[in-house]
Amino acid sequence: MNLILLFEDDFVSDDEVRLSGRRLEHVMNVHRANAGDELKVGVCGGRIGSGIVTRLDDALEMRVTLDRDPPPPIPLTLILALPRPKVLNRVIASATSLGVKRIHLVNAWRVEKSYWKSPKLSHENLLLQRTLGLEQAKDTILPDISLHRLFRPFVENELPSIANGSLALVAHPHAQAECPRAVEGAVMLAIGPEGGFIAEEIASLERIGFQAVSIGARVLRVETAVAALIGRLY
Amino acid sequence: MNLILLFEDDFVSDDEVRLSGRRLEHVMNVHRANAGDELKVGVCGGRIGSGIVTRLDDALEMRVTLDRDPPPPIPLTLILALPRPKVLNRVIASATSLGVKRIHLVNAWRVEKSYWKSPKLSHENLLLQRTLGLEQAKDTILPDISLHRLFRPFVENELPSIANGSLALVAHPHAQAECPRAVEGAVMLAIGPEGGFIAEEIASLERIGFQAVSIGARVLRVETAVAALIGRLY
Repeated sequence: MNLILLFEDDFVSDDEVRLSGRRLEHVMNVHRANAGDELKVGVCGGRIGSGIVTRLDDALEMRVTLDRDPPPPIPLTLILALPRPKVLNRVIASATSLGVKRIHLVNAWRVEKSYWKSPKLSHENLLLQRTLGLEQAKDTILPDISLHRLFRPFVENELPSIANGSLALVAHPHAQAECPRAVEGAVMLAIGPEGGFIAEEIASLERIGFQAVSIGARVLRVETAVAALIGRLY
Repeated sequence: MNLILLFEDDFVSDDEVRLSGRRLEHVMNVHRANAGDELKVGVCGGRIGSGIVTRLDDALEMRVTLDRDPPPPIPLTLILALPRPKVLNRVIASATSLGVKRIHLVNAWRVEKSYWKSPKLSHENLLLQRTLGLEQAKDTILPDISLHRLFRPFVENELPSIANGSLALVAHPHAQAECPRAVEGAVMLAIGPEGGFIAEEIASLERIGFQAVSIGARVLRVETAVAALIGRLY
């Protein structure tokens, strides 16, 4: 936790917050803070700054000063075949830490149906994973996540207008084209499930202007691929 | 498991293997293979090819044909402050999947002493994590891992000759210089612990020719940073 993310409900006055639960425990047990210490804070959706600890026992109270903007986002929209629940948390936190602000989780042929029933998809869990990513990267702007349980209607009806004006890429191990580097401007990046998108799915994406690109013969886990591709693109 | 990694001990004749344990279970329960199916295999340290399942019950037997070289390695040596045990497995598997062939795990001021006592550092576990990384990326060449419990002797006495001829970089959030992109040739990349290398450690690395480079204001988890930096460098 390199920054403590604050929400509206945490404020007890204009510049004072009171926290409990996970954040209190982290500041006690990991930061091992004391009254008077200064901690880095940021308001969800707003600015970052510092908080002076004024009380730390069964609650954490701080007086906060917000004086800087969060780091700039990266103009990349991630379209991710719904990963295994075990992997989902790490991917969401990691993409968030990298500065992604728009994530579409979509179905695909090789996504197991049971994944859509996972409690990891709850609003609470998705909020927690994004919060962890923001706290890691000292950012405050939550990425939007939307779920699309049907691949074709999403790709054919919704994606064309979302992708409008972006460089649209789908990572595909067998693609001929190499993934571009150091692009300027918006990118829409689709990443398939374990085992990859099937040929028909790649074709659907190509029909609406996506280009299949490769980053080499190595098949990467989705969270590794997301970070490596973003490192390459920006 | 996109490739089943075979070891010398698995061979019962020149082209026949017999497997049990983790690989047997995976092929049964995840691949759900049957006799006659063809699976991708590779020999540790050698070539890749395919195996035809000839028996699958309390053992997995295959007849294997090896006809291709593994994907080329990336010429990057990773110098990693020993991560938290929980993170170590993912970092090793992920760096291996990205094609890294040389990993030095080193101590640093902000590495907790207890990390060096973790059972995750056992030979068996480090071999397993590298195997998982190779199986993921369809590679066969195990990276070397070495452990250095003292930062200064390693940096002052060993690292200069290891780094000789490489572009030597240390990832540091506060560095002025940007991390280069798409380099040709060997890179030595040092990545600090959570909280970063301390100024003195950065100075030690700079004295032997390392350049401190940044990939932006965002502080990334080590496994995310490794993948993003490698994606950027190669």
